[in-house]
This record gives sequence, structure tokens and C-alpha cells, in this order.
Amino acid sequence: MVLDENSIFTMKKTLARRAAKVETWLSICLEKREIPERLKASMLYSLQAGGKRIRPVLCLVCASLCGMNEDNVLPFAGSIEMIHTYSLIHDDLPAMDDDDLRRGKPSNHKAFDEATAILAGDALLTDAFGLACTTNTDLTFLLSALKELSFAAGSSGMVGGQELDMLFTGKKNLSLDDIKVMQSMKTGALIRASCVCGALLAGAKSEIIDSISSYGSALGAAFQIADDILDITSDTVTLGKPAGSDEKSDKNTYPSIIGVKNSRQEAQEYAMIAKDALSKFTGNDAEFLISLADYVVQRAS
Amino acid sequence: MVLDENSIFTMKKTLARRAAKVETWLSICLEKREIPERLKASMLYSLQAGGKRIRPVLCLVCASLCGMNEDNVLPFAGSIEMIHTYSLIHDDLPAMDDDDLRRGKPSNHKAFDEATAILAGDALLTDAFGLACTTNTDLTFLLSALKELSFAAGSSGMVGGQELDMLFTGKKNLSLDDIKVMQSMKTGALIRASCVCGALLAGAKSEIIDSISSYGSALGAAFQIADDILDITSDTVTLGKPAGSDEKSDKNTYPSIIGVKNSRQEAQEYAMIAKDALSKFTGNDAEFLISLADYVVQRAS
Repeated sequence: MVLDENSIFTMKKTLARRAAKVETWLSICLEKREIPERLKASMLYSLQAGGKRIRPVLCLVCASLCGMNEDNVLPFAGSIEMIHTYSLIHDDLPAMDDDDLRRGKPSNHKAFDEATAILAGDALLTDAFGLACTTNTDLTFLLSALKELSFAAGSSGMVGGQELDMLFTGKKNLSLDDIKVMQSMKTGALIRASCVCGALLAGAKSEIIDSISSYGSALGAAFQIADDILDITSDTVTLGKPAGSDEKSDKNTYPSIIGVKNSRQEAQEYAMIAKDALSKFTGNDAEFLISLADYVVQRAS
Repeated sequence: MVLDENSIFTMKKTLARRAAKVETWLSICLEKREIPERLKASMLYSLQAGGKRIRPVLCLVCASLCGMNEDNVLPFAGSIEMIHTYSLIHDDLPAMDDDDLRRGKPSNHKAFDEATAILAGDALLTDAFGLACTTNTDLTFLLSALKELSFAAGSSGMVGGQELDMLFTGKKNLSLDDIKVMQSMKTGALIRASCVCGALLAGAKSEIIDSISSYGSALGAAFQIADDILDITSDTVTLGKPAGSDEKSDKNTYPSIIGVKNSRQEAQEYAMIAKDALSKFTGNDAEFLISLADYVVQRAS
């Protein structure tokens, strides 16, 4: 695959600009709420720990791609980032992946305490739905997006995927299909929903939503495989979380089953599927999404 | 206070009938979803563990009181019970209250494992919002109720209250006002919201909502004080959870600060405030709510 370095450079600049918009919105929104001090500090600690903000930006860009002013969906996009952040806090807990480091800093339960980390996660998740409800769009569109988000993040999506991930840990003889199902739920569902919700909020027609959904599914798969490869090939400082942790904790991943080289090939194929799904779209937003598909497989962290 | 035993008997029968309706709805709803087996079992284990179902029934009755067919708000009422159930699962975790017994059975993390219990709670909370979105009413009413529910359950409500409860544990020199604030968030907010959401879903006018809100706040306060008294005066078999656990874990409660006798007086005063708030309502639903206020302070478990 030949990467268009220039497009990726432009995309990364736009990604950073949009990420900053989401971060500002989230900080203003949380700061002004009356929340017990320690709980608020814990929520903000993880929300403001950085990250690429890919999910909320996907929501903004897909809404814009479907003709909506992206600023109108900021509350919804912010709520997606809150849900992603809660999932990281809970995944890091001692009873789950037991990770002490996240984005180069102590994970939430290390910086605060386990009870506060559980509650910060619960609060981010609960508040997210309330904030998403303030999105300024047609109420029918908003209700569809809320249902989509809940489904993608809940028992049949992200949370279900995390349960499978825990059950698969240390298991022998899993097939690549098992991993595909687990990853499509654990990571894929929320990335896909971020795209689809943007389109739903903009009132897009069903064939448009289908294309955007295909893009999101393939992007999510490419993203997770790349993540699993980085866990093997990168280092802790670059990643901001412990490198080699999948092998150490006996996780089943793409590279643990088919090796790094074949996994790289699979990731690139998913990136190609993602880009193909957008072939009928033109303009800056479509170009952004296409470059993002290249970026997720070639990123270093 | 002279209790009208006959009204309470009628109320308890109606409460049980409505609770059964909520339970049936929840079971059908969860059973048919595609959820990883162990996660689904864990969610259903706690959802089907019994309980009085006071919160969802309050939602049904308050909707009916405001002229709506209560069956139309079943999805919303069910989602409130899911949120209440998730909060019990997380409260029982070793990092929180570390309780091994709930409703006469091993608590969720004892029956399954800690990771699954955390995820079952997360899934119940997330799925709840999606299911609440399917409530059949005017979308403006539904959005108001969703915001109310999120606010009551989140960082400024139930989760914030649980954080305060953890911080207050073992602290000396707390005032009764500190306890009032903590309990109004931890228990009061969701009980009040259960009532208010019923009224909101029915499109009630603001002065009606205000009365119902006052009822819900006072009922929530009465309920929690009664709970704290029962922890001291009752036994583990009757309660279905360890009696005496507040004292053992050095929790600050009404009776720990002003004693059992004064606490009983306070609970009865709150029950009176709750009943007064409904003085302008007539009919079966109002009678049910009034008897419920008596019941929560005189119940044995």
C-alpha cells in the first residue's frame, strides 16, 4: 500500500483541531456541574488525559458529511468520548486488565482509588446519555442515535465484547472468527456507532447510513488489529501504556493467532474496505475519513 | 401516627401486581437479546433476585396519576429498575461496600466474579438508556424524562451520593445536614426521578410535576432513614442482607448521629410531607402513593 503522506498530514491537522473542540466542550461542560470534588477530579483526570479523540471526531465528520453543521452534534460527540473514557477506566481496574498505566500516566484507580475509579466510570457513562440528549437536532433523529449508541456500548456491543475478551484470556484453540466477533463488539461497535450516529443525527437516508456503517465497521477492525500489532512492536513510552501486555496477560489477538505479518495484511485489507465504502462520497469530509483509514493502520501509537 | 392497615394491605397487593408486570417485561426484554451467555446470566441473576420494585412502580403510578396508560411507560419503568440494580451490584463490590449477601443470595461478584459483576452493572446501565428510548410517548416528553433520569442517576445524583457515602465512612463530626445531602443524592434522587419521570412522560404541567417531585423527595428521605433504622433493629434473614453492616463498616447514618428514636420521628415527618404534597390529588393512584409513604416507614424489610 502506498500511503499519501500529504493527505495524512492534512488529516492529522484537522483531527487535532476537531479533537481540541471536543476537549474544550467536555471541559466546560463538566467543570460547571455540581459534582462531589473527588469524583469530579477523577472524571476530569481521565477525560483530560489526552488521546486521539477518534470516536467523537468521527461523529462530527460523519454529521458534516451528511450536510449538518458539525458543531450542532458536539454534545453527542462529547458523550461518545465520555463513554469511551469510562470503558478505559473500568478496563484498567485490578479485576479486569489490571493496568497501572494509561496514556503515559497512572491509570485512574492508581491516581485515585478503586472505588472512585468505578464511580468515575459509572458517572461518565450515566452523564453521557444526559448530555447526548441536549443535542440540537430533530428529536426523531436524536432518539435513533441514542438507541444506536446504547446498543453499541451495551451488553450486545462494547460491554459484551469486554466480557468475551476476559473469557478468552488464556484460552487455547480459539479461531480467528472468535477474535473477530469479540473485537467487533469490544472496539468495532463503538467506532461504527460514532460514524452512524453522526449520520443519524443529520437525518441521512438509509443507503447513506449503510455506507457509513460499512466504513465504521471496517475502520474499527483495522484500528483494533493495528492496536494489537503495536502492543507487540512498539514500546511503553511511545504507547503511553505497557507494551507487550497482551502477551504477558495471555490475551488472544490477531497477531497471537496469525502472526504480525498476516495481521498487518488483514489490517490493510480492512482499511481498503473502509475506503471503498466511501467511494461515492466527495469533498473534504470524505477525504478526511479516507485518510483516517490509512492513518489508523500506519500510526505509531 | 395511626396507620391505616387496610389501605396498606390494598397498596401492597397493587404494588406486587405492578412489580410482577415490571419483572415480566424485564425478563422478556433481556432474554431475547443476544448477549454473551455469562454476562446475560449475571445481569438476569441480579435483575431477577426480587426486591420491592418500588422505583419502577412509582414511575408507572405517577404516569397513571397524570392521565397516561401506565403500560405505555413500562420500558421506562423497567430501565429505572435496571439502573437501580446496576447500582446495587457495584455498591456490593469489594472496593465499595464489600457485601457478600444481597436479597438473601450471594451478591453478584460472589455468584460470578468481580470482572463480570462490574460488566453486568455497566451493561444494565447502558442498556437501560436504550430501552428507555423505546417508550411510547411524545418525543419532547421522552427527552425531558431521559435527561431527568441521567441527571438523577449520574455524578450530581446517585453516583455522586455513593462517592460521598464512601468518603463519609469512618469520618467523625459529620452533621445531620451532611447526611441529608448525601442521602438525597444516593437514594433520594432516583426515587424522586422515578416519580417525576412518570409525570414527565405523561406530559404533566409544571405545577403537577412540582407536587410529584416534592412527594418523591420526601418519600426518598423517609425510605432511606427507615432503611438505616432497619439495619440496626432487624436481622440478616429478614433483611436479606447483612444486618448491622452500617455500624460494622463505620457508616454515618441518621441513627448513628441522632439515634434510632429521633430517626424514627424524622422518617415519619418525611412520610407526612410526602402525603401532604399529594393533598390535591384524588383517586386510586393518589391513595396508592399515600399508603406507600406510610408503608416505607413501617416496613420490616
